[in-house]
Amino acid sequence: MALIVQKYGGTSVADLDRIRNVAQRVARTYDAGNSVVVVLSAMAGVTDQLIQMAHQITDDPTKRELDVLLATGEQTTVALLCITLEAMGYPAISLLGFQAEIVTDQRFGQARIREIHANRIIDLLRQRKIVSVAGFQGRDPKGNITTLGRGGSDTSAVALAAALKADVCEIYTDVDGIYTTDPSICDSARKLDRISYDEMLEMASLGAKVLQTRAVEFAKKFNVPVRVASSFKEEAGTMVVEEEKDMERLVVSSIAYSKDEARITITKVLDQPGIASKIFTPIAEAGIVVDMIIQNTRQGGLTDLTFTVPRTDFQAAMAIGKEVARAIGAEEVLGDEYIAKVSAIGVGMRSHSGVAAKMFTALANENINIMMISTSEIKISCVIEEKYTELAVRVLHDAFELHKA
Amino acid sequence: MALIVQKYGGTSVADLDRIRNVAQRVARTYDAGNSVVVVLSAMAGVTDQLIQMAHQITDDPTKRELDVLLATGEQTTVALLCITLEAMGYPAISLLGFQAEIVTDQRFGQARIREIHANRIIDLLRQRKIVSVAGFQGRDPKGNITTLGRGGSDTSAVALAAALKADVCEIYTDVDGIYTTDPSICDSARKLDRISYDEMLEMASLGAKVLQTRAVEFAKKFNVPVRVASSFKEEAGTMVVEEEKDMERLVVSSIAYSKDEARITITKVLDQPGIASKIFTPIAEAGIVVDMIIQNTRQGGLTDLTFTVPRTDFQAAMAIGKEVARAIGAEEVLGDEYIAKVSAIGVGMRSHSGVAAKMFTALANENINIMMISTSEIKISCVIEEKYTELAVRVLHDAFELHKA
Repeated sequence: MALIVQKYGGTSVADLDRIRNVAQRVARTYDAGNSVVVVLSAMAGVTDQLIQMAHQITDDPTKRELDVLLATGEQTTVALLCITLEAMGYPAISLLGFQAEIVTDQRFGQARIREIHANRIIDLLRQRKIVSVAGFQGRDPKGNITTLGRGGSDTSAVALAAALKADVCEIYTDVDGIYTTDPSICDSARKLDRISYDEMLEMASLGAKVLQTRAVEFAKKFNVPVRVASSFKEEAGTMVVEEEKDMERLVVSSIAYSKDEARITITKVLDQPGIASKIFTPIAEAGIVVDMIIQNTRQGGLTDLTFTVPRTDFQAAMAIGKEVARAIGAEEVLGDEYIAKVSAIGVGMRSHSGVAAKMFTALANENINIMMISTSEIKISCVIEEKYTELAVRVLHDAFELHKA
Repeated sequence: MALIVQKYGGTSVADLDRIRNVAQRVARTYDAGNSVVVVLSAMAGVTDQLIQMAHQITDDPTKRELDVLLATGEQTTVALLCITLEAMGYPAISLLGFQAEIVTDQRFGQARIREIHANRIIDLLRQRKIVSVAGFQGRDPKGNITTLGRGGSDTSAVALAAALKADVCEIYTDVDGIYTTDPSICDSARKLDRISYDEMLEMASLGAKVLQTRAVEFAKKFNVPVRVASSFKEEAGTMVVEEEKDMERLVVSSIAYSKDEARITITKVLDQPGIASKIFTPIAEAGIVVDMIIQNTRQGGLTDLTFTVPRTDFQAAMAIGKEVARAIGAEEVLGDEYIAKVSAIGVGMRSHSGVAAKMFTALANENINIMMISTSEIKISCVIEEKYTELAVRVLHDAFELHKA
């Protein structure tokens, strides 16, 4: 007899048959005596189609209206799910973002949830209704429709679970849990039973696409237990939970990788105070997020500055870099789109030394050159040539013996 | 410098090119200094597709959720229109039913507008915004999404025009005005410059599909001048207005027809008080709307009862009729799906006699048998065999000389 929030992603509601499959899973959970809130994404591909339609009109569609358009995707799936559940004899009701009182700020297209007035949902659950909430959307304080950005339905689900003090937030997707690394490139990848919020956060921000970063932040902040599992299987999946003592036994718990970045180097920059600000301020003003930054000192008071940006922003960042380079009298701007970032993640790093050394050695043994390194308390990332990505992942997975439970 | 409500139907917003055409028309009206509220339907065919999708799940989808689903159609078009207008440099904002505060009763699928809180729209118009309101939808007092039934966008537009005290409500559609009869079956059909609310009401309820009956009722009640015109041409169309003195010169202003009904006869019914109630109460309880009723007296205290129902309800009404016939000891129940109703309409009938005689003579001259007759203050309807429909329309159009201005 628990309060359970279940979120189903786009592939899980891609057509009427799959929506029926979701309805059956929801019904089983309900029949077991639980209170169930279901959060849905749009059907797979629909959000992209709508964006494409708007872009046929203009390269830069008004953000407020684009959100009105995109919100139809989740509106469609919650209505279809409730029609299916009702046809099966279950009392179901859909709520859109504004009806569920998911209040966000006014940043159309990437709004952040400020608060959720959960009273209406709680009332409906007391009446033993199955409540289906449209994910990805909310309303701002003025009643405008907002959307939460890519993968926002995960955040909707976790935020609702937090507001409702749910016992668990189940994220159903097309993979059956969190793996030690991507199983499609590493045969010995192993599904994890549990993982800590911090590790999941690093994995999400380092390229694992299974959970949206902000959803994990929410879960950590409000201590919502999250289960990631497949909507097509009956397996338990992976629990994302607070760090536990026994987790520390694993020094490294997973290997992540990302091919979403590009590297830019500005050579022979005058090594003086304020120079980094001159380079990175205009880039930030263009809305480009810089990930890693490295500065190498040369002789003669000169330095080389290397940084990475999202690959989609590469051309824009190069143009800004060239302009800045002229302005500050730097030598040249070099770009490389064909890089990848491989990362080892694990809360055990906090108390173990030698992780970095083991990682560098494993890569060196395969003659994989490391271009950039960045570290945090619980991860080490190396930028390498893109062509070595899969090899590097397998080598690191072996080196840290992640195939062993 | 007027306040103008413009409504564009499904064929006028059927694709992005047509939405651009609408945007250009709206922009011209705005550039002339007018305040503009635009009410849109869903793209042609979309509402039917959504209904079909719901019916793939179940024959009887939950009405509340069907409305949530259907409301996405108009949500899509208002967003796309505003994106287009903004891309053209015009300040536009979309409002869904709940945002425009179109408050309805709770009858999902056929809700009626109770009130509109127009303050937000008035504020936006003062800021010189073009306000685009999703037609066909509202919200009930509890915030549930409701829809107004087939053609409901016309009603949205007229109700908004009434609430805003607009100077005119322009209904743009795929025909260029109101004709003396259907031009596709009568070459000499002539476009009317003006027509009274009462005549338009009769035409709408007698089968002319150009304006929804409830929209005309609203217009009449609040005295909203309505212009019906084509969204693809620059012509003035037809004004639907309060009855004017000079309108009376036309005895009959139009000929309407409908093939949407079927006829049922129950023979040898005991002619005693309460018998009609026994027949029509169960039919009404099944939600079937009976149009015409005729009772013919036979000898021996027996009577034949004939009535018409919507053709879509024919099978259901026949089943009820047979049950009732058994219960009351009537002889048999006869059904005929192949009937049509042709009607002559005109406010001039109020002060002219001989219209009925002229109508019957014209039909008789072509050997068209009249099965049923019904009259109101400003119309005469005859039920005939369906196969004579087009002939009857042309004959009546000629008889009343409607080709002459």
